[in-house]
Amino acid sequence: MSMTGAENAITDVAGLSVGHHERVGRGWATGSTVVLVPDGAVCGVDGRGGAPGTRETDLLAPQNLVQQVHGICLSGGSAYGLAAADGVMRWLGERAHGFAVGAQPHEVVPVVPAAVVFDLPRSDWGNRPDAEFGYQACQNAASGPVAQGCVGAGAGAKVGSLKGGVGTASVIVPEPGGRAGETRPGHPQPGESQPTVGALAVVNAFGEAVDTGTGRPWTAECELAGEFGVGAWPSRAGDLSSGDGGHAGDDGRSLNTTIGVVATDAALTKAECQRLAMAAQDGIARAVRPAHSMFDGDTVFALGTGAHELPEGSGPFGAAARAAALDQLCAAAATCFSRAMVHGLLRADGTAGLPAYRDVWPEVC
Amino acid sequence: MSMTGAENAITDVAGLSVGHHERVGRGWATGSTVVLVPDGAVCGVDGRGGAPGTRETDLLAPQNLVQQVHGICLSGGSAYGLAAADGVMRWLGERAHGFAVGAQPHEVVPVVPAAVVFDLPRSDWGNRPDAEFGYQACQNAASGPVAQGCVGAGAGAKVGSLKGGVGTASVIVPEPGGRAGETRPGHPQPGESQPTVGALAVVNAFGEAVDTGTGRPWTAECELAGEFGVGAWPSRAGDLSSGDGGHAGDDGRSLNTTIGVVATDAALTKAECQRLAMAAQDGIARAVRPAHSMFDGDTVFALGTGAHELPEGSGPFGAAARAAALDQLCAAAATCFSRAMVHGLLRADGTAGLPAYRDVWPEVC
Repeated sequence: MSMTGAENAITDVAGLSVGHHERVGRGWATGSTVVLVPDGAVCGVDGRGGAPGTRETDLLAPQNLVQQVHGICLSGGSAYGLAAADGVMRWLGERAHGFAVGAQPHEVVPVVPAAVVFDLPRSDWGNRPDAEFGYQACQNAASGPVAQGCVGAGAGAKVGSLKGGVGTASVIVPEPGGRAGETRPGHPQPGESQPTVGALAVVNAFGEAVDTGTGRPWTAECELAGEFGVGAWPSRAGDLSSGDGGHAGDDGRSLNTTIGVVATDAALTKAECQRLAMAAQDGIARAVRPAHSMFDGDTVFALGTGAHELPEGSGPFGAAARAAALDQLCAAAATCFSRAMVHGLLRADGTAGLPAYRDVWPEVC
Repeated sequence: MSMTGAENAITDVAGLSVGHHERVGRGWATGSTVVLVPDGAVCGVDGRGGAPGTRETDLLAPQNLVQQVHGICLSGGSAYGLAAADGVMRWLGERAHGFAVGAQPHEVVPVVPAAVVFDLPRSDWGNRPDAEFGYQACQNAASGPVAQGCVGAGAGAKVGSLKGGVGTASVIVPEPGGRAGETRPGHPQPGESQPTVGALAVVNAFGEAVDTGTGRPWTAECELAGEFGVGAWPSRAGDLSSGDGGHAGDDGRSLNTTIGVVATDAALTKAECQRLAMAAQDGIARAVRPAHSMFDGDTVFALGTGAHELPEGSGPFGAAARAAALDQLCAAAATCFSRAMVHGLLRADGTAGLPAYRDVWPEVC
């Protein structure tokens, strides 16, 4: 049986902190969220949406020089929101966290990949995150707990016909299953510490996160230990007629995007991080339908902090043992990302014209 | 025999304008260069260096939604310089140039891919381009002529042991060569207008752009119509001992990067633009040695404005005819990019510790 981490948040991976900054009200509903790893973490990325808005993703290719990043910046504001990463770089650089490029400790270039969601219709035109949003999100960063719902990059989020938001989750990864009697050379023995996987998602998808005919989130079954706090899921169609933010009123130019971070304390290579990010995209595929549309920019970053050694990948049994351990992390990442997305859905607050899940199905709360 | 365009500059491709903004002196030597296409151009990108610094490259993948960009931002300042693109977006957005995301004309998101060069050692720490540099470069943009040398993103550039800079060039693309008697269905007949290819390069490579044993630029032979203004190339080794900016003093952390734009008025798809960008990388491969190192971030964008139709790619002969026409553009792009790099080398001014080409081989000037 799987267990969540202590906070059921991405910050259960030691070394990570998360901060939000948003403006809501008076013509604003947008913000930025940072995941900081000031001491560096190996990073990979996978993009599967048709309309991504990103920066510093090319350097993450496994064949490239830079091995570690120092933070991930997620923002509203569409491509304009990429400016928030400037503020994250400044905050990290002021504290001498970054890739060393000179003899002095402060001569660093922080590596801060970023992705954005399209939430411009939630704010008056021209209101979008700038560098200050990224800087303030860093100021607010803490190693937990992590606020969820309409905060940070989720402040203006929308998922299908409903208000979206930020969600997070974590899991202590169980031992890989092996066939009875099979030896698994190099694999940690029972009693050794197990890796943690955490996810943080900004749920802003074109597709629906809920079976609107029954009210059940598509990935409700992923729940661990009653984390969703729902005694029984509804089994009735939702009345979505009160909202004007659904697909009916769209003119076909609606853009969306689910973005997020999946993290583990396992010691992964860049290529392995990329695979972890790919796995988390499966979590999106399950949690929203349709997923990965031409109007989504779905981008997931994966971080490996390195505290937990995986089996060596060498020798006659090593490669298979390492691949099996990585697959275990990947399966956990997919499910954990789906769970984070359900949290983002359930924790969102409705706004004028865009009801929250619990506005439509209040019986679950 | 090939001919250059009227200005021998990337702006010979109609619809493009180029602007620079830099700060030089008093602890500064860095800047930004923009290539603006306010009405939009199809765009592709190719990255072949090990240390890229980029934004908005993921959306350029052929399978993704956005088909056109509105500008390319090239900057010094390493990853910090990605902030310059914020200013380019603001300038374009204020003028309602961008991807339409709402009912009002001003509700646009300008698409501005960007790449940066590593020139931090040329400036006091902390002096690097910000959003204002990008905005000012837009203010300075014109449809030609294009300033070259230590301007814009080339203000702090370095190539091997020498000062680098910005260079540009263009070519009227000759008819594809065919075997005698071979018909080339769908190809423009002689007398129809021929496409133009232009390039703009920020020459900041780890490798040398000159055979330092002879003083001859590696791609001197690409010269068109006496454009380099050199009667006879030197044939003596250069004395590079006066400089302290060469490889000898490096501690292995020197980062570099050649970045640039290749453009054509041909009507290309995103995938064809990507191929044009790949071809321009061959121009880098020839012009600097070594090229595409782990310490370069070599990224080239390709723009197609669409005025000049290529042969249709359908039917029994069409695909081959279109491929042949594209190959002709690609060959021109590679050579044109090499020529732009030689211009960037020759037009640079030396600084303390980093001699220009013409400081070392003054007899050519």
